[in-house]
Amino acid sequence: MQITMRSIGTVRTTAVKLPRHCRISNVKGYLEIDPPYIKGLADIKAGERIVVLFWFDRSPAFTPDLLRQTPPHRHRPFGIFSTCSPRRPNPIGMSVLEVLAVRGNIIDVNGLDMMDNTPILDIKPYMELPAADGSKAGQTDAGPVS
Amino acid sequence: MQITMRSIGTVRTTAVKLPRHCRISNVKGYLEIDPPYIKGLADIKAGERIVVLFWFDRSPAFTPDLLRQTPPHRHRPFGIFSTCSPRRPNPIGMSVLEVLAVRGNIIDVNGLDMMDNTPILDIKPYMELPAADGSKAGQTDAGPVS
Repeated sequence: MQITMRSIGTVRTTAVKLPRHCRISNVKGYLEIDPPYIKGLADIKAGERIVVLFWFDRSPAFTPDLLRQTPPHRHRPFGIFSTCSPRRPNPIGMSVLEVLAVRGNIIDVNGLDMMDNTPILDIKPYMELPAADGSKAGQTDAGPVS
Repeated sequence: MQITMRSIGTVRTTAVKLPRHCRISNVKGYLEIDPPYIKGLADIKAGERIVVLFWFDRSPAFTPDLLRQTPPHRHRPFGIFSTCSPRRPNPIGMSVLEVLAVRGNIIDVNGLDMMDNTPILDIKPYMELPAADGSKAGQTDAGPVS
């Protein structure tokens, strides 16, 4: 079964050296969303966090020897699904970014760990999770059907 | 530009009624990962949370009138990128699940909001984010290159 997707926009940043992960990034830039999707940005506001799914378009093809990889900052191999390596079976990246401003089809963001010109696949609302205590009682509404 | 992806496994659950979002779900089931990827599960442990990306394989095709949608529990239309609607330009779903056990190519999970037989695209480690105060000082290491 094959699934075909299309870019909905592009990451723009002048940064050349990017941190390993959005959690440790203060790199600014913007998301240039393709004009046909502009109405979908209507409720994205400055100050909030968004989840951005993107395509690791410059990653070499995945091969079975990459099922375990030693991250640059670790000292042993880890299963690919416990890492954020860009070389994975489906090269989808995920970053949580801070929205600085929304200007038409442009979303100014902070926290980039994607390279300039990276294709964007989706944007989702970021939702805090409750503490991992097994209890989901008292949850505030988590949003539309996921 | 077209991007082609493949399923790496399948969601299995006997639940028929599923909650709107993993945040409010206590539905149990399992992820049946295709055997070629089993080595990639080596570091997934019971008790941790994982991010699961999946394909909304039963969602009707996206059309421009869906750029703004009124979620079932809301009272006005929202831009698609501020919702978790399964009808989106690229029908990728994202859930954070609790790992109950790992048995070979099977990951027992809690918190499902995906339907039985949903194709899985990727699994990533779940990482808590710091409070949205703009400061990322004192971050613990956030993992491999993302």
